[in-house]
Amino acid sequence: MAASSEYRPLSDKSLMVDYLKSTPALSSKLKDQFDDLDVREVGDGNLNYVYIVVGPSGSFVIKQAIPYVRCMGESWPMTKERAYFEVLALKEHGHLCPDHVPEVYHFDRTMSLIGMRYLEPPHIILRKGLIAGIEYPLLAEHMSEYMAQTLFRTSLLSHSTTDHKRAVAEFCGNVELCRLTEQVVFSDPYKVSEYNHWTTPYLDSDAKAVREDNFLKLEVAELKSMFCERAQALIHGDLHTGSVMVTQDSTQVIDPEFAFYGPMGFDIGAYIGNLILAFFSQDGHAKEGNDRKVYKEWILRTIGETWNLFQIKFVALWNKHKEGSGEAYLPAIYNNNEVLQLVQKKYMNDLFRDSLGFGSAKMIRRIVGVAHVEDFESIKDASKRADCERRALNFAKMLMKERRKFQSIDEVVLAIREVQ
Amino acid sequence: MAASSEYRPLSDKSLMVDYLKSTPALSSKLKDQFDDLDVREVGDGNLNYVYIVVGPSGSFVIKQAIPYVRCMGESWPMTKERAYFEVLALKEHGHLCPDHVPEVYHFDRTMSLIGMRYLEPPHIILRKGLIAGIEYPLLAEHMSEYMAQTLFRTSLLSHSTTDHKRAVAEFCGNVELCRLTEQVVFSDPYKVSEYNHWTTPYLDSDAKAVREDNFLKLEVAELKSMFCERAQALIHGDLHTGSVMVTQDSTQVIDPEFAFYGPMGFDIGAYIGNLILAFFSQDGHAKEGNDRKVYKEWILRTIGETWNLFQIKFVALWNKHKEGSGEAYLPAIYNNNEVLQLVQKKYMNDLFRDSLGFGSAKMIRRIVGVAHVEDFESIKDASKRADCERRALNFAKMLMKERRKFQSIDEVVLAIREVQ
Ligand SMILES: Nc1ncnc2c1ncn2[C@@H]1O[C@H](COP(=O)(O)OP(=O)(O)O)[C@@H](O)[C@H]1O
Ligand SMILES: Nc1ncnc2c1ncn2[C@@H]1O[C@H](COP(=O)(O)OP(=O)(O)O)[C@@H](O)[C@H]1O
Ligand SMILES: [Mg+2]
Ligand SMILES: [Mg+2]
Ligand SMILES: [Mg+2]
Ligand SMILES: [Mg+2]
Ligand SMILES: [Mg+2]
Repeated sequence: MAASSEYRPLSDKSLMVDYLKSTPALSSKLKDQFDDLDVREVGDGNLNYVYIVVGPSGSFVIKQAIPYVRCMGESWPMTKERAYFEVLALKEHGHLCPDHVPEVYHFDRTMSLIGMRYLEPPHIILRKGLIAGIEYPLLAEHMSEYMAQTLFRTSLLSHSTTDHKRAVAEFCGNVELCRLTEQVVFSDPYKVSEYNHWTTPYLDSDAKAVREDNFLKLEVAELKSMFCERAQALIHGDLHTGSVMVTQDSTQVIDPEFAFYGPMGFDIGAYIGNLILAFFSQDGHAKEGNDRKVYKEWILRTIGETWNLFQIKFVALWNKHKEGSGEAYLPAIYNNNEVLQLVQKKYMNDLFRDSLGFGSAKMIRRIVGVAHVEDFESIKDASKRADCERRALNFAKMLMKERRKFQSIDEVVLAIREVQ
Repeated sequence: MAASSEYRPLSDKSLMVDYLKSTPALSSKLKDQFDDLDVREVGDGNLNYVYIVVGPSGSFVIKQAIPYVRCMGESWPMTKERAYFEVLALKEHGHLCPDHVPEVYHFDRTMSLIGMRYLEPPHIILRKGLIAGIEYPLLAEHMSEYMAQTLFRTSLLSHSTTDHKRAVAEFCGNVELCRLTEQVVFSDPYKVSEYNHWTTPYLDSDAKAVREDNFLKLEVAELKSMFCERAQALIHGDLHTGSVMVTQDSTQVIDPEFAFYGPMGFDIGAYIGNLILAFFSQDGHAKEGNDRKVYKEWILRTIGETWNLFQIKFVALWNKHKEGSGEAYLPAIYNNNEVLQLVQKKYMNDLFRDSLGFGSAKMIRRIVGVAHVEDFESIKDASKRADCERRALNFAKMLMKERRKFQSIDEVVLAIREVQ
């Protein structure tokens, strides 16, 4: 790969074309045809610049990090080394689950620049599909596969301790992104912060109640500690419905710049929590002739299937690789069906509770924290939006406190039904 | 510091003297007087060589790692880089708790060689004092202070995330020592292993029962995962009673070569578990005129005081530093006495259960695993020894399974009384 000798943002088309021309891994994708090149910045994202580059004979996406948080401006610095960790994770997860991770064509560390497969239309961001009320029949199958493969195979169920600690150490370098999560997910919503906002005045007292709920603070402390201390697997770190692009038969996970060795439940919870947010936002999108009732049922079914398929796939991987390189459960010790089932059941139960906890934290922060979700933001009527948000918030608070009482995802789905 | 250009064991006195002469940090301690130098190898330890060097005007200890496990021979290779991590930990813990950690004078990474304070007589290894039936009135006070300072101040209660992840990454390099612990503490005792041994034939069926106890295996899996995944604090990693040297008024912790960022309960459990082993071995040392009854009471009191003082000191540090650099519990969130007490109570309860779990694992491995303890080994009569060991083993098995039911250390002490 050619590499730039110093960092500069490729915000200008001619700079971009110069860069592509001098980068064989990218110019070859375009078959060296640079006339009629279409370069479009599409970064609806919060942090980085994303350019779609389409030529007559090929295409790709260029993602470039800048040394601050894009949506906050230069006053919120953030290392552009995040691109390095994003590429590490794209490659590792892509290796483990190639069907659901876009291929990386090029990485330039100096430029904090990634070249990757363009997920061409009709791929759209899942969150937008959920707002539009589109069903994705393969979504649960695909996302459960992605999570099972990436989480199982980067955990000590698959790694030797030696491989694990080497990888853990490397991803400790992504500390700035971890700190951002600590702040916006586990801290700011529970204190007065200039960054917090909510649908005011409707949720003023709800936001205050979150800041004054000692039992909620007790639970979020446990979750935060787990996030900071527990190197269980290489997690995506930002697995909301805005990090997934979909068509009717393709599901692609993008944007793992927050990746590090953390608790598996953080990914599963982020994803399921965002599906629950999508569910609670549906009433705000209902209109004459489309009350979204059927769609809400599909979301609930998808939530249930996602966990249930994940669990089946994860345990299947465990059984398949139980004599493999993983050093957590040695076959000479876990040497009979009864004990294997005992430990698997406990592992999955613990992971389920963790996922519910992290999921609830991710929901709460999207309603009273700094970054909200389009699912709610696109509900124009503030009072209607606040009603949807309040139901989601109350459900999330209950889930965080009572998560240990839920025995199955079906019970969670039942509880969602009860409050809406 | 002068440093050798390549590794060689200083097993020969003349090599040692040459090395000292060319190392200002050490020769200056001797005031450059090398005649009448007394060099004695005293490594009763399992892994390394330890030399006491005493001259007419000064003294120190030289500890040198060799590239294998000393007690197993060259067939069990083990990186000599462990000396590097031992020094890192001696310095960090020594900085945090200078009263209870010997000063480091010199480190030579190429030579895997540490020069440190000679803990002169009457310092003896605590384990030997416990076997001899000697009371140490300040022991609980000192060890609780050491554990509170070193564990609190290397945790996220004191560290920023940035400092924590940097340190965690560095200590991931001590992976070979972590793997050794995984093997000998969490794995070998629960499977058939050429290294395991026990007082045979008396404990044959007890050892077999450990290998066939599915519920014990379920618990030890949870503990092993916590050991491998949870970077809670810079732990000593081998804090048994053979890593503590004592007099009536001095308590010094040596030998942290297994140090890494792991669960605090592993240190607390190692130490308390080894005190419990000392307790159960006392009947084997009883003789005419000294039934050890009074001494057993002192051990039980010491166990209780160790935890209770640790808890008081740890919470006091927390309260003192609650507005400090630690990022786990931000003062703006944990901003009232009620919530602070809630989170502290939960933290200490969790730590207590972890400590009991790890303590029981450390006990079990000393009875049916590879490395035993002198407390039992010095009981000559095999049948008597087996009786002591069996009581300790049964207690440890119960503790591992039932640890969540114990509310206080007094209840644990009560349970010890009941089985002996
Ligand atoms: N490989 C890709 N193919 C097509 N569109 C993409 C691709 N990667 C990103 N995008 C578009 O760019 C947006 C922002 O990308 P993302 O990686 O989420 O950036 P950020 O880190 O700033 O959130 C996505 O929401 C999506 O619309
Ligand atoms: N600083 C010291 N002062 C006095 N004696 C020491 C010192 N360090 C070690 N020793 C003696 O050497 C023995 C082995 O030391 P240790 O550090 O435990 O080595 P190992 O890592 O091989 O177990 C100790 O049990 C103690 O008797
Ligand atoms: Mg994004
Ligand atoms: Mg992103
Ligand atoms: Mg030792
Ligand atoms: Mg021990
Ligand atoms: Mg040692």
